[in-house]
Amino acid sequence: MTNTYTQLDPPSRVLLGPGPSDVPPRILTALASPTVGHLDPTYLQIMDETRQLLRDTFKTKNELTLAVSGTGSAGMEACFANLVEPGDHVITCVNGVFGTRMTDVAQRYGAITHPLEIDWGQTYDPRQIADTLKQNPQTKILAIVHAETSTGAHQPLEEISRIVHDAGALLLVDAVTSLGGLDLRVDDWQIDAVYSGTQKCLSCPPGLAPVSFSPAALAVMDARTTKVQSWYLDMSMLRNYWGEQRVYHHTAPVNMTYALREALLLIHEETLDARFARHHLNHTALRAGLEAIDLQYIPQNSLTTLNAVHTPANIDEADIRKQLLNQFNIEIGAGLGPFKGKAWRIGLMGASSTQSNVTLLLAALEKLLDRSGATHAAADVYNAA
Amino acid sequence: MTNTYTQLDPPSRVLLGPGPSDVPPRILTALASPTVGHLDPTYLQIMDETRQLLRDTFKTKNELTLAVSGTGSAGMEACFANLVEPGDHVITCVNGVFGTRMTDVAQRYGAITHPLEIDWGQTYDPRQIADTLKQNPQTKILAIVHAETSTGAHQPLEEISRIVHDAGALLLVDAVTSLGGLDLRVDDWQIDAVYSGTQKCLSCPPGLAPVSFSPAALAVMDARTTKVQSWYLDMSMLRNYWGEQRVYHHTAPVNMTYALREALLLIHEETLDARFARHHLNHTALRAGLEAIDLQYIPQNSLTTLNAVHTPANIDEADIRKQLLNQFNIEIGAGLGPFKGKAWRIGLMGASSTQSNVTLLLAALEKLLDRSGATHAAADVYNAA
Repeated sequence: MTNTYTQLDPPSRVLLGPGPSDVPPRILTALASPTVGHLDPTYLQIMDETRQLLRDTFKTKNELTLAVSGTGSAGMEACFANLVEPGDHVITCVNGVFGTRMTDVAQRYGAITHPLEIDWGQTYDPRQIADTLKQNPQTKILAIVHAETSTGAHQPLEEISRIVHDAGALLLVDAVTSLGGLDLRVDDWQIDAVYSGTQKCLSCPPGLAPVSFSPAALAVMDARTTKVQSWYLDMSMLRNYWGEQRVYHHTAPVNMTYALREALLLIHEETLDARFARHHLNHTALRAGLEAIDLQYIPQNSLTTLNAVHTPANIDEADIRKQLLNQFNIEIGAGLGPFKGKAWRIGLMGASSTQSNVTLLLAALEKLLDRSGATHAAADVYNAA
Repeated sequence: MTNTYTQLDPPSRVLLGPGPSDVPPRILTALASPTVGHLDPTYLQIMDETRQLLRDTFKTKNELTLAVSGTGSAGMEACFANLVEPGDHVITCVNGVFGTRMTDVAQRYGAITHPLEIDWGQTYDPRQIADTLKQNPQTKILAIVHAETSTGAHQPLEEISRIVHDAGALLLVDAVTSLGGLDLRVDDWQIDAVYSGTQKCLSCPPGLAPVSFSPAALAVMDARTTKVQSWYLDMSMLRNYWGEQRVYHHTAPVNMTYALREALLLIHEETLDARFARHHLNHTALRAGLEAIDLQYIPQNSLTTLNAVHTPANIDEADIRKQLLNQFNIEIGAGLGPFKGKAWRIGLMGASSTQSNVTLLLAALEKLLDRSGATHAAADVYNAA
């Protein structure tokens, strides 16, 4: 390691991987606003506004809605840490990286876990959930991923929510790759605990984890007989810090809150419906383009925010990603788990979901794979829209 | 809550509270640099440089030195989470808020704690530490605060470190209000685990927690028979993420790392010695000024970074702080615990530690308290320097 350091000068990438996504200039400007004290009246108002904007984005009236001072995985951990007490039974739905991670996290907080495993990239049939709940009548929580970043699988939740509540359990949902990009209705779908990250469909830099808890989840927390194992993530203190009392807990990440507020304000201005429609259109165009050059999607039920495709058999997939980065300044993601070396993950999230990005990526892939027809197929979708 | 939101426009405060401190424009500019992917080659180099700069600032060669993706309290929790297994004995030195918090955190990770309590604002005599270790020969960790942000107490560590190691225990240190502002020698003083925050003497926005672990601490982690209770803070995974392998763990807070690197680079350019001397001079001048208007310090052994003084008996201390904020744009901190309503905490940390800030605050206090002589007393210190 040398002791000479050059001036910080990161390149302006086109971020089409599994996150972070492109951050709009307005959000970066907000991020760089003057730091004020975390108990400054100005900041308290910014916290309040951020909470309300988060509720709107989650489509919830949940009082306990806030941003955990960590990345998306801290949000996952916050949900399990506050709802699980040692010996509780938890069903985790495992069809990708994040279902696997939920099992690990739940176990660390003392849960007896019942992983319901299906092939990566598949989604759950509600009957599978019903059967598993019947086999495990003592279940306290069923945890499932709405939008699996590792495979692109899009899990419908409405019917599952009914089944889970009929069985007397709480529904815990990973919405990391759906919040702000894909229809998510926390109240309508009766989700009891939900977490997300800032660097996906919110197009904010990574660093905060929006979470929301239903009144039923709150009642479970209030009835705990053991302390939450994590001090940092203990909602009984965090809610007093974010609430009226402003009881000091930790020093909030002030500038990241500025950025999150701005990101949520951009969504408020665009409206959720317009944003979902934009994600849908760009996904449809990308999909038409990718399939026109024989790239096949992994799940039947693809997210509009994350496109996972099998890589062609006869190419060095890592080399193509490297060329995309070096020649075109475009980042896309590699496969994980069983898809390592066998898939690309292409994010069209938040500000990254644009017609020009779709066209740019398809043109780059046409050149690097020496195929044609992708950009035309996408253009047909846009022309028909 | 209204649905109309104004443009984000936080005021430019003079931050002389217990943190955050003033953030230099270079750091805010770095913070707002374009977000790249967390596995982008550019970012990996930035992580490496940040690690090396952190080692230099901690004065350590510890391989396991990194920034936890949370605020300072997440750093505290990371130290206990990784070193404590259920049933381990931990002595916590409690002479303020953060010693109290360490006890709570250690207990949540299953430790049997032995709090060594002394009056808030006092520092420990090494003989007290030796006696307590003798009474608790099974002690695995002794945890102590180097710089108590709640009282301004400055705890010398060299002799205590010898005593702790002679007793076969590990030394865990809170350096939240010392790193980058006050002499701290992780290797020379044989500190086994140390954590800090970015928003104090590093003058970076809050959001990351620098930590460092000695080879002895590493050996203890490697010999664990139980999983670390926190997934997010598990160093066995974090070290592979920050290490050569770059094994995906969570999405690092990319822009916050930019800011931290820039903050550390500013220290590298100023040099630690010059920085410590600057903090010492400004503290000495402030102290002369405060004492000239009859404001008395709480601890005998005051930090140069955090000045805690008793408030005058016949004034409304909260009103004075409010006037400082509203008339002078200056933030100072309130007292905590037994000092609630009875003390002010004045930070001179990082970029906030300047002659002009000292003079400005003293002039403001002269006016608000209707006293005189403070600025002159400070000027005498600067003239003699």
